[in-house]
Amino acid sequence: MINEKNKALGIHPSVIRNLYEYANKRKKEIGEDKVFDYSLGNPSSKTPKEVNDILISLINDEENVHSYTSSNGLEETRIAVKEYLEKTYHTTLNADYIFITSGAAPALSIAANALTIRDNHDEAIVFAPHFPDYRVFCENAGASLVTVQPDPKTFLPDFNDFEKKINEHTKFVIYNSPLNPTGVVYKEDTILRLTSILKKKELEYNHPIYLISDEPYRELIYDDIKYPFITNYYDNSIVCYSFSKCLSLPGERIGYLVVNPKCYDAASLFYAIRGAAWSLGYICAPSLFQRMIPLTLGLTSDLNYYRINRDLLYQNLIKIGYDVIYPDGAFYIFVKALEPDAIQFSETAKKFELILVPSDSFDYPGYVRLAYCVKKEVIEASIKAFKQLFDYYKDK
Amino acid sequence: MINEKNKALGIHPSVIRNLYEYANKRKKEIGEDKVFDYSLGNPSSKTPKEVNDILISLINDEENVHSYTSSNGLEETRIAVKEYLEKTYHTTLNADYIFITSGAAPALSIAANALTIRDNHDEAIVFAPHFPDYRVFCENAGASLVTVQPDPKTFLPDFNDFEKKINEHTKFVIYNSPLNPTGVVYKEDTILRLTSILKKKELEYNHPIYLISDEPYRELIYDDIKYPFITNYYDNSIVCYSFSKCLSLPGERIGYLVVNPKCYDAASLFYAIRGAAWSLGYICAPSLFQRMIPLTLGLTSDLNYYRINRDLLYQNLIKIGYDVIYPDGAFYIFVKALEPDAIQFSETAKKFELILVPSDSFDYPGYVRLAYCVKKEVIEASIKAFKQLFDYYKDK
Repeated sequence: MINEKNKALGIHPSVIRNLYEYANKRKKEIGEDKVFDYSLGNPSSKTPKEVNDILISLINDEENVHSYTSSNGLEETRIAVKEYLEKTYHTTLNADYIFITSGAAPALSIAANALTIRDNHDEAIVFAPHFPDYRVFCENAGASLVTVQPDPKTFLPDFNDFEKKINEHTKFVIYNSPLNPTGVVYKEDTILRLTSILKKKELEYNHPIYLISDEPYRELIYDDIKYPFITNYYDNSIVCYSFSKCLSLPGERIGYLVVNPKCYDAASLFYAIRGAAWSLGYICAPSLFQRMIPLTLGLTSDLNYYRINRDLLYQNLIKIGYDVIYPDGAFYIFVKALEPDAIQFSETAKKFELILVPSDSFDYPGYVRLAYCVKKEVIEASIKAFKQLFDYYKDK
Repeated sequence: MINEKNKALGIHPSVIRNLYEYANKRKKEIGEDKVFDYSLGNPSSKTPKEVNDILISLINDEENVHSYTSSNGLEETRIAVKEYLEKTYHTTLNADYIFITSGAAPALSIAANALTIRDNHDEAIVFAPHFPDYRVFCENAGASLVTVQPDPKTFLPDFNDFEKKINEHTKFVIYNSPLNPTGVVYKEDTILRLTSILKKKELEYNHPIYLISDEPYRELIYDDIKYPFITNYYDNSIVCYSFSKCLSLPGERIGYLVVNPKCYDAASLFYAIRGAAWSLGYICAPSLFQRMIPLTLGLTSDLNYYRINRDLLYQNLIKIGYDVIYPDGAFYIFVKALEPDAIQFSETAKKFELILVPSDSFDYPGYVRLAYCVKKEVIEASIKAFKQLFDYYKDK
């Protein structure tokens, strides 16, 4: 009598959340410092003090700080985002094609609903392993999700598989760089290869194939890598961004969606985005945080905090003998499970108080994801447990 | 190639917004005080100073103020809402069946998606004149919208028409009290009549018919009327609420959804609500404002401000000779157009710098809506223009 698909989603909200709740329960049982919780991507670097100071002065000084804004966001915010992105990535944008959203998830959901035609056999391509919400948003919009396998060595896309999976029904492709759950970053050569395939296929099928770049971790790159901003490489592109990770305010829900002005009929696409936002119930992004954006663009939390964690965790896991993908960015590390079934491996790890997310959640088997946005002390204390877990399997 | 239905929605975002933008343009041309803008329901009573002080101390003192919360909201917030509603309306609720939302619009959109089964001929009933978003949210979820006509004298529902419109496909009914656009409040006798019809029809069709109460204006009732809280009258009920109007912070997007614990299989319904929220892209309501709720429940902006406006506007319009529905609540007044075509009447009113919303937007012809959440001085200065508009039609 009610929507059973949504009921099923609500019952199994996410394996990650369940592990996080298990970790909290376990901490209460045996002590906070005895449980090594690598489950949740909740930024642990502090929100910059400047950001909090700006929020306070906005509340004190701006008479209309809490008022409605237009659904696509305050004009000064959209202009500030445009100018910041143009300067940082040497690209050309249009403030009228920027939509301020309540984070990256709504931006993705809105984009999927703007592009997908229901009952039209539309397909959306994603690259495994991938963020679980992609499936939820695409299927809710009426698109089928098609998964491209990774190159098992680099965890970059298997481009032969990608090319095979594109067909006349392919409406859009989502990629995520830096990538949750592997921390892999798509460097320029990867973006060039990906977009050259798409351009060829657009000609072959004679219609746009939209490319959505989901980039909430854009600033979280630790080595000397130039971030290839997608509007410089591919016309039919959309950027989904969130301030959650770079400013450590994931609960406040603030981000944006950028339509490349070079998109085929960008004006129509932007109307569809406005309409999709309305139809899903989005009135406007939180107005206080919209007003914060022009005053904080370019500012980040202490990201060196995560780099130190990455190096510490990566080096120790390698030393113990784990098979680990080297992460260039984000705050995740992808580790090969010590048995084929990652869910069983995650269960076994719990015996050593290690809370690891099985990669099955990311449409890919045999690995676990560790979110290392934790205090350094947690990583230091957990090394012994990782060693014990490794030895447990060796002795088996 | 893109979603044309969403594109059409995005092109005509709303007649109200267009009038509001026209008013702003016109103010720039002839002066702020020469244009009488009754278009938008943007609260003009100030946000209480206590609320801003609380927001500032939360930012200063709470270490995790910007962190993710669970999707249904912080436990302390849900418990506080439960206790406040129980005490205020002498009802019994369950904090596990309360979902903190980004305002009333997402609550409605989430409820529609939780209840509706796509391609199942589900129908949703609303009472004309009604808030335009009901159609958008219900149709997006896959339900057909069925409109019940009002009693033309009282603008309460025509209950004969209501009874006729309920059938085996009726999945849910939305009502709104105080009502946008008429300001009418459903007193206890109306709620008793409405629910007794629904109870009879539930038995007749042998399945629940859910009743959704959309109540963002609940505190904006100016005369001595007891608000009949729906969980006390009908088991299969859902409450959608927003703090936008009572605390004058509509841009911040904070509200809640309450599932009556007496609902048929309330646990399953709540799972469907969690799943629907996820599938639409809602991660959590803004965390700063979630934390505000327990500290501000019961607090309101100066609502007497609107009562003074109502009395001033109502009495003057009646005196001039307009046919006006007496508004018990909200900050809207519904006035009969002086010609059958309300859109043409709204155009004519522009000549006198009066910005009035034609009732066609609310699925009802022949009236205009005036949002009197404006400064008192605007109302005072506009009376002359209303007289001129009236005389213009008299002399025609």
